Amino acid sequence: MREIVIGAAQMGAIQRADTRESVVDRMLILLDQAKAAGCTLVVYPELCLTTFFPRWYMEDQAEVDTWFETEMPNAATKPLFDRAREYGIAISLGYAEKTPHGRHFNTQITTDRHANIVGTYRKIHLPGHSEFDPNRAFQHLEKRYFEPGDLGFPVFRNMDTWMGMLICNDRRWPEAYRELGLQGVELIMLGYNTPSVNSQNSDEGPEMRQFHSDLSVQAGAYQNSAWVVAVAKAGDEDGHQLNGGSIIVSPDGVIVQKAITEGDELLVHACDMDATKFGKETIFDFKRHRRIEHYGRITGQTGVIYPDGTKG
Amino acid sequence: MREIVIGAAQMGAIQRADTRESVVDRMLILLDQAKAAGCTLVVYPELCLTTFFPRWYMEDQAEVDTWFETEMPNAATKPLFDRAREYGIAISLGYAEKTPHGRHFNTQITTDRHANIVGTYRKIHLPGHSEFDPNRAFQHLEKRYFEPGDLGFPVFRNMDTWMGMLICNDRRWPEAYRELGLQGVELIMLGYNTPSVNSQNSDEGPEMRQFHSDLSVQAGAYQNSAWVVAVAKAGDEDGHQLNGGSIIVSPDGVIVQKAITEGDELLVHACDMDATKFGKETIFDFKRHRRIEHYGRITGQTGVIYPDGTKG
Repeated sequence: MREIVIGAAQMGAIQRADTRESVVDRMLILLDQAKAAGCTLVVYPELCLTTFFPRWYMEDQAEVDTWFETEMPNAATKPLFDRAREYGIAISLGYAEKTPHGRHFNTQITTDRHANIVGTYRKIHLPGHSEFDPNRAFQHLEKRYFEPGDLGFPVFRNMDTWMGMLICNDRRWPEAYRELGLQGVELIMLGYNTPSVNSQNSDEGPEMRQFHSDLSVQAGAYQNSAWVVAVAKAGDEDGHQLNGGSIIVSPDGVIVQKAITEGDELLVHACDMDATKFGKETIFDFKRHRRIEHYGRITGQTGVIYPDGTKG
Repeated sequence: MREIVIGAAQMGAIQRADTRESVVDRMLILLDQAKAAGCTLVVYPELCLTTFFPRWYMEDQAEVDTWFETEMPNAATKPLFDRAREYGIAISLGYAEKTPHGRHFNTQITTDRHANIVGTYRKIHLPGHSEFDPNRAFQHLEKRYFEPGDLGFPVFRNMDTWMGMLICNDRRWPEAYRELGLQGVELIMLGYNTPSVNSQNSDEGPEMRQFHSDLSVQAGAYQNSAWVVAVAKAGDEDGHQLNGGSIIVSPDGVIVQKAITEGDELLVHACDMDATKFGKETIFDFKRHRRIEHYGRITGQTGVIYPDGTKG
């Protein structure tokens, strides 16, 4: 048994006017709850220090940059790191990262139980678009404000466990989980900000969106025999509704904890990392069952090529 | 609208003593029902002409070969092909194939509406093992009796639709769906024979097994925006229980039809192939969103390689 008591720290809405300090105060309350519940690892959502700013079209890069962090920890988040160190709780959180070279990424970091950053992931599957789209009910400009991640899908050792991270839209891509699975990942930490309505199809509302999210997370967990902690930023951000539904999923693909609010809410579950073994050694023993000689299209082509040679 | 009224022809148990002729008689009854329901395509399960013989350990290849077909159609299945042609119904069915060169595959074929075979698939992800395993509650010797398929994952044009096939354990492998998705597949036909209890874990029973099956099929459908018809051979075969739960799944990943028995049972659904377009053109527009430069492990290694270099 290698048990980690994990806290999935769903966060409610962050308004455009909210300061990072006010957000960190909320994160500290969740951390205190986690401490009281015996957690040794707390996972916060994607872009958890600010509102989901890619819903707004901006042309002024200086304005865009106000949503980014240039170092981590920084003045605003230092209290969080300090208290996490004091509690001996590892934390994972997402934020918009501007590097010293001026590059922009949608990033998540994980610390050890001493508040040292031991894992960094930069979101690879950026959804949405890069130019203003008048045909959408609202904008989703992640392709405008971020570069695709340049670090691949790192797996790292922390708390006697192989850990990896994914961010939001990554969870819909089985390639992302598989890259982690092929490195033996046992725990995947994943944050998301998911609009409750499809900006290109108003008939696709919160229930269907949550179903798609859960489906993808559960399949990714099962098919790689890994724990997945999927944590939402939820609620009404300046009139834009985000889904909640944070979940902790077992290596069998079963939801063992689920958020019931759209606000700040801590889910707690004692996750045994050894529970990942059975699947990895039997039905998903990759070395015995995968047939990479037939997977060539997955890395050989990006888009669809129909059998008649036309491109999709 | 490109509508195909599809019949998913779940079949109940086939005992070891049952003749192929008796099985085809049952398939004809399902075909008659499909005709009455207006179907133009009927999908039968994996290995639908015989019992699931890989549960038995055999050393005599002549005995093994009695479970294989050396041509298709053959004397036993000709009545099925004849009636399908008469009805103008395309059919898809799975069987054990012995080629003229003496090779053995777990195969599925699909015909056009004139009973001409227009698609052939040979199962790539063979589950189980190749030698007698005394630690299992029962044997699952697919790796003994079949070679892995040698045709890749073909997509073919039929009934104004891009179609592909998968067989049983393939459905748990996202690589299989993605190979089809990267060829623009709109309809995936999939048969299975799934023991109701995990032979290596008696605590994993029918409900969990069905959950894993549904989860994998629904995720594969959603993540490639394709219809998937998953058809079981079900029931008690000589004391060995197989799961039912045949389903038809929409390109949204939603189960639109589900079998309620473990016997011969026809599910019918009018499937609009144009319903695959929205997903393929938006969230799963592969050419805009996939990042193949980060997928190298998927084709570069078969098994797990941990970050410290050890192999799983």
